[in-house]
Amino acid sequence: MDSYTHPYTFSQRAQQLTSSTIREILKVTERPEIISFAGGLPAPQGFPVDVINEAFGRVLAQNGRSALQYGPTEGYAPLRAWVAEDLKRVGADVSPDEILIVSGSQQALDMLGKLFIDPGSKVLVEAPSYLGALQSFSLFEPTYVAVPTDGGGLIPEGLTADSAAGARFIYALPNFQNPTGLTLSLERRHALAERCAALQIPIVEDDPYGELRYAGEALPGLLGIGRAAGATVVRLGTFSKVLAPGLRLGYIAAPRHIIAKLVQIKQATDLHTATLTQMAVYETIKGGFLTQHLPMVRDLYKQQCGYMLDAMAQHFPATASWTRPEGGMFIWVTLPEHIDGTKLLARAIERNVAFVPGEPFYAGAGAKANTLRLSFVTVPEDKIRAGIAILGQLIKES
Amino acid sequence: MDSYTHPYTFSQRAQQLTSSTIREILKVTERPEIISFAGGLPAPQGFPVDVINEAFGRVLAQNGRSALQYGPTEGYAPLRAWVAEDLKRVGADVSPDEILIVSGSQQALDMLGKLFIDPGSKVLVEAPSYLGALQSFSLFEPTYVAVPTDGGGLIPEGLTADSAAGARFIYALPNFQNPTGLTLSLERRHALAERCAALQIPIVEDDPYGELRYAGEALPGLLGIGRAAGATVVRLGTFSKVLAPGLRLGYIAAPRHIIAKLVQIKQATDLHTATLTQMAVYETIKGGFLTQHLPMVRDLYKQQCGYMLDAMAQHFPATASWTRPEGGMFIWVTLPEHIDGTKLLARAIERNVAFVPGEPFYAGAGAKANTLRLSFVTVPEDKIRAGIAILGQLIKES
Repeated sequence: MDSYTHPYTFSQRAQQLTSSTIREILKVTERPEIISFAGGLPAPQGFPVDVINEAFGRVLAQNGRSALQYGPTEGYAPLRAWVAEDLKRVGADVSPDEILIVSGSQQALDMLGKLFIDPGSKVLVEAPSYLGALQSFSLFEPTYVAVPTDGGGLIPEGLTADSAAGARFIYALPNFQNPTGLTLSLERRHALAERCAALQIPIVEDDPYGELRYAGEALPGLLGIGRAAGATVVRLGTFSKVLAPGLRLGYIAAPRHIIAKLVQIKQATDLHTATLTQMAVYETIKGGFLTQHLPMVRDLYKQQCGYMLDAMAQHFPATASWTRPEGGMFIWVTLPEHIDGTKLLARAIERNVAFVPGEPFYAGAGAKANTLRLSFVTVPEDKIRAGIAILGQLIKES
Repeated sequence: MDSYTHPYTFSQRAQQLTSSTIREILKVTERPEIISFAGGLPAPQGFPVDVINEAFGRVLAQNGRSALQYGPTEGYAPLRAWVAEDLKRVGADVSPDEILIVSGSQQALDMLGKLFIDPGSKVLVEAPSYLGALQSFSLFEPTYVAVPTDGGGLIPEGLTADSAAGARFIYALPNFQNPTGLTLSLERRHALAERCAALQIPIVEDDPYGELRYAGEALPGLLGIGRAAGATVVRLGTFSKVLAPGLRLGYIAAPRHIIAKLVQIKQATDLHTATLTQMAVYETIKGGFLTQHLPMVRDLYKQQCGYMLDAMAQHFPATASWTRPEGGMFIWVTLPEHIDGTKLLARAIERNVAFVPGEPFYAGAGAKANTLRLSFVTVPEDKIRAGIAILGQLIKES
């Protein structure tokens, strides 16, 4: 922010927003010569462009005027019913009126901030956690308390009566977490659900990547496990990773009383999510398209992940350690303690390689600066190998 | 809200949200036998379904992967440039980087609430004003101060150093205001701009209906007039009324320093507006389509407005008065003081006629309960005449 005095006053929350140093550094990743492992973009080869095109065409030809008119804040009823039915896949039995359609799950985070957070409210997050969620919640000025994680993700025992007291909710990504790529075991899911039920802490389960599992066995989600244990669970899902992110379409599954409040919030926030988009996505998926489509996407991600893990084994020193994700888009690297990820990024960019340093993913105390996040999704194999070789060399030189 | 104790705590702002009595009453308007003047829906006959369908098809066929990928938070660059160019029409000279694309102008209201409003901040609004804006701003807990209006809309002289002191902004709809249908004269626009410049109050100009003028002469907007006078102006626009609302597409025009802050807010709010929608709308309008399309929409609205004014002249008593809009969607009725609009609605619904009572459109003190808003847009001529006859009879009996 500049020092010129403007003839207007921003809110406290807006004054606290600062331009991220990392974001400024990463602007260079748009240059074509950069090998960027920094992105969070899904692979565009996985977008079913023709199928989506046909679906938009059919909806506009058959129901154009409805598709272009205002719609209900709750969302398009057939899509809500589809989502409710689909949640059986993750072991949850929910009704269509427990589903609210939103404009991407980032919007769900904003709405949950509005619903639950007063200035100073305690919010429990994994350490590290999804940066976009931290940014979204931060507009409502919470106090973050980090629940520790280890190689198995969030540690339920780290959630104590003391750390949980007065917390408005705990935010968790159980599958192939962003940024770590870690997956919460079945045992930990049950332990977390029971603990949250006992401590009366609502669980916000964010599961953007769950359908992108390419190794290991699918596990039931926190929604079903938590409900069975008597916990309040709000689940966020998205079509960004199973269809395409440019559509901006996601959903919230929650108890009716919470959905009712979120509907009022959604109406004040943007009235409703685009009718045409909802109808076209429903048209795309209603006949079971995702069942045919997702294996191709999973194979693609598995292959890309394999290239990177293979190159890391070859080029990274034994002093570095990293996660081996069973799905999703990210690998998390822990370097020797004397190496700062942000400083490493500056040197990597001189060599035309980019990634995201780990520190911004930590809220509250205990950030580990010797970490970094690598995305393997959109980079071709030869560039993955070349970029990882350069990173390995830089780490060894550090 | 029910009295059962839930195992979670909502934020103060969420606790204050109450289900609107009026909204509950108006749920009956979905019944087919109801003649509803309550809606705020544009006429679906005005939606260029085929042209939009072709545009989506071309974008997906030619640039499908880009259209389905994440995009920049600021919006699709060619659409930003188109909006900047289009604003010459309302007398403003702005650059594309002073434009931010949003998911409908309701989202702009939410983002301006985040940008400007702390709990208790003073916000100046017209009396009456757009209900959706009041709902949106209210999530950020402002204190409203009503600037009085008369038959010419907002009275600039009503904005005094005292009433304006510390206000974060004034929110105004200069063209065919919702709910009154009134248009601010050129003289008042200049007076308002000069006063806001002198008092250092930013102007938020909301202009959803400006292109729907079917009588009188087009006037320059507050953006250009305000800038020339040295005021800070934030303008909100939308494609909802010139193309179709189900797309959820709008924009904010503002000084760069404000846009920069709003971009950070937008990123936390929903990352960005759907790429495909932005590209398809740009594809629809880039060749000048709106110039061909809008005369048909204006003619339609003019005709519908004429039917209602004609029926009102025939059936309403001389003790009622009402506005004669030069554009837009609404007529505002002032009844004799002893008639309460909400009570009249209850009786009208028994006779299968609906409208929106005026009281909820007032923020702060001075609400006039003897008012109501009528929309003439989506009701066929015979039903307009029948519904107005019934309303006239009920008013006479009151």
